[in-house]
Amino acid sequence: METILHLLPLPADGQDAFRAAAPEARHIFLPTDDRGGLRDLAPELFQQTTILFGFVPPDRLRRFSHLKWVQSWNAGVDSYLAPGVLPEGAMLTSAAGAYGPAVSEHMLAILLALYKHLPAYRDQQSSHIWADRGPVSTLHGKTVLIGGAGDIGRHFALLARALGASRILGLCRSARDVQGLDQVYALDALDMLLPKADVVALALPHAPETVRLLDRRRLMRMKPRAVLLNAGRGSAVDCAALAELLSAGHLLGAGLDVTDPEPLPPDHPLWDAPNVLITPHTAGGYNHMQLTLDRIRALFLDNLKRYVAGEPLRNRMR
Amino acid sequence: METILHLLPLPADGQDAFRAAAPEARHIFLPTDDRGGLRDLAPELFQQTTILFGFVPPDRLRRFSHLKWVQSWNAGVDSYLAPGVLPEGAMLTSAAGAYGPAVSEHMLAILLALYKHLPAYRDQQSSHIWADRGPVSTLHGKTVLIGGAGDIGRHFALLARALGASRILGLCRSARDVQGLDQVYALDALDMLLPKADVVALALPHAPETVRLLDRRRLMRMKPRAVLLNAGRGSAVDCAALAELLSAGHLLGAGLDVTDPEPLPPDHPLWDAPNVLITPHTAGGYNHMQLTLDRIRALFLDNLKRYVAGEPLRNRMR
Repeated sequence: METILHLLPLPADGQDAFRAAAPEARHIFLPTDDRGGLRDLAPELFQQTTILFGFVPPDRLRRFSHLKWVQSWNAGVDSYLAPGVLPEGAMLTSAAGAYGPAVSEHMLAILLALYKHLPAYRDQQSSHIWADRGPVSTLHGKTVLIGGAGDIGRHFALLARALGASRILGLCRSARDVQGLDQVYALDALDMLLPKADVVALALPHAPETVRLLDRRRLMRMKPRAVLLNAGRGSAVDCAALAELLSAGHLLGAGLDVTDPEPLPPDHPLWDAPNVLITPHTAGGYNHMQLTLDRIRALFLDNLKRYVAGEPLRNRMR
Repeated sequence: METILHLLPLPADGQDAFRAAAPEARHIFLPTDDRGGLRDLAPELFQQTTILFGFVPPDRLRRFSHLKWVQSWNAGVDSYLAPGVLPEGAMLTSAAGAYGPAVSEHMLAILLALYKHLPAYRDQQSSHIWADRGPVSTLHGKTVLIGGAGDIGRHFALLARALGASRILGLCRSARDVQGLDQVYALDALDMLLPKADVVALALPHAPETVRLLDRRRLMRMKPRAVLLNAGRGSAVDCAALAELLSAGHLLGAGLDVTDPEPLPPDHPLWDAPNVLITPHTAGGYNHMQLTLDRIRALFLDNLKRYVAGEPLRNRMR
């Protein structure tokens, strides 16, 4: 008999659907608002839990010694793939696909804020200053290069198109056709693509080939008036080089929901670099938008039904 | 023979099109980046100019004593309609229709910034603080009430729909069908509509019936978690009452490109009210976005051809 620990917040009638999907299992519902607060978990449950729906920090995950399957509510699960975090043979599924609307909206919000000088106007507002900051930018007629052609990238493509972008290119590990993108290239086309893009929007997972993908040399290949967005993994961008280049006047701006390192240390030069807007890895909070929660919940339920039926799980990562 | 004073910045070949449209006229090109800097204008031209393309402040417009027609680059021309500003019998045309993309994008930028806590994150960034501000909002499934169903309102409706708004209502001086809006009501429906709207977005011209349209009583009728946007005329909102209500926790936020009075005085309580984002009447700067300039230029050229042909002018305001 499986013991399923549900950490995801559920609506009043939400437990019934999960019980119905796996009636033989024992269901423990412990919705948590802080990431991995397990104070209320009976100690014996660490050993008894065989299926975990949610997220606990990797160092605490080791206490769950009999896990067979972890369904994370995160889209990126790289921290669970390190050796020794999950028990031998345990399956891991991500929540990739749940975050498209939330993260793409956040990326658009940051891009438009940079285009319309909203950070500068906010600073002026704090000093009660009414002063025109001059010409603004727009996505109309622009070329957007999206790193990562998954759920987030495809949603961002839709939004960029609605705001008038004329060409939307994608970049992922292997070239392929993706609906809504004009063309998708493999990573080795990046050097050729960077000088064409007015916006470079990264929603890439952490992987050996994405680490420092935008190093100093590549940042220099971007158009002088381009915008860099990153809502994937901070490791994809050399943040120290970015701070230097922004200070030297390269790029129109940068909007970063993820940084390297993270949290960004208080003395990091990026905080005060010109034309940068930083949010603290909040674009994709699992509990930050009802729509995201709804999509995670639907995925969890679908995967539980597949598990019970012995079918392949979606988003299998190991 | 007409003497046409062109104040609008034109591209290198832009003068030719205007000369070709009115070959008999004398064309004076004096593109200006500051609003109405006429230092380089030969003194005799104040009397000789019969057609003015652009904008000079109303108090300086009086020096142009022989004007027959002013084609403003502004969408709102209320300051030119006051008695004595224009010579008797002079025609006035506005640039309504040129600002839809620019102003609607600015409104969306402010709305998304408020939804995603970007002003708060910007403030944290200034203090080098990395801290999650919690759940965010989205337009998905929301009801949007747009005040003003003209070019700006219609463009904003398109953007709101692309971001997932499920119902888009309009409000204008008389009820009518407008493409892209689910229903358009007359102003007297406002009391009934306010409790339904998650976003109230104003792009209304200055007119007797729009002054203090959103007074304290009407602001109180808005949903407690609604957002108010104003990019039309500041006089439509009671800004002192708005500051008080925001401080009392009413509304999710307010995004104001226009205020009353304007500029907002340094000691006005709105500057420091919670969840407000203020930009200094820059959403629709005639020279702030290339696309706006292109649209203004096309309108000017079309109206000049109409003038020469003796046809009715577009956007005739008097």
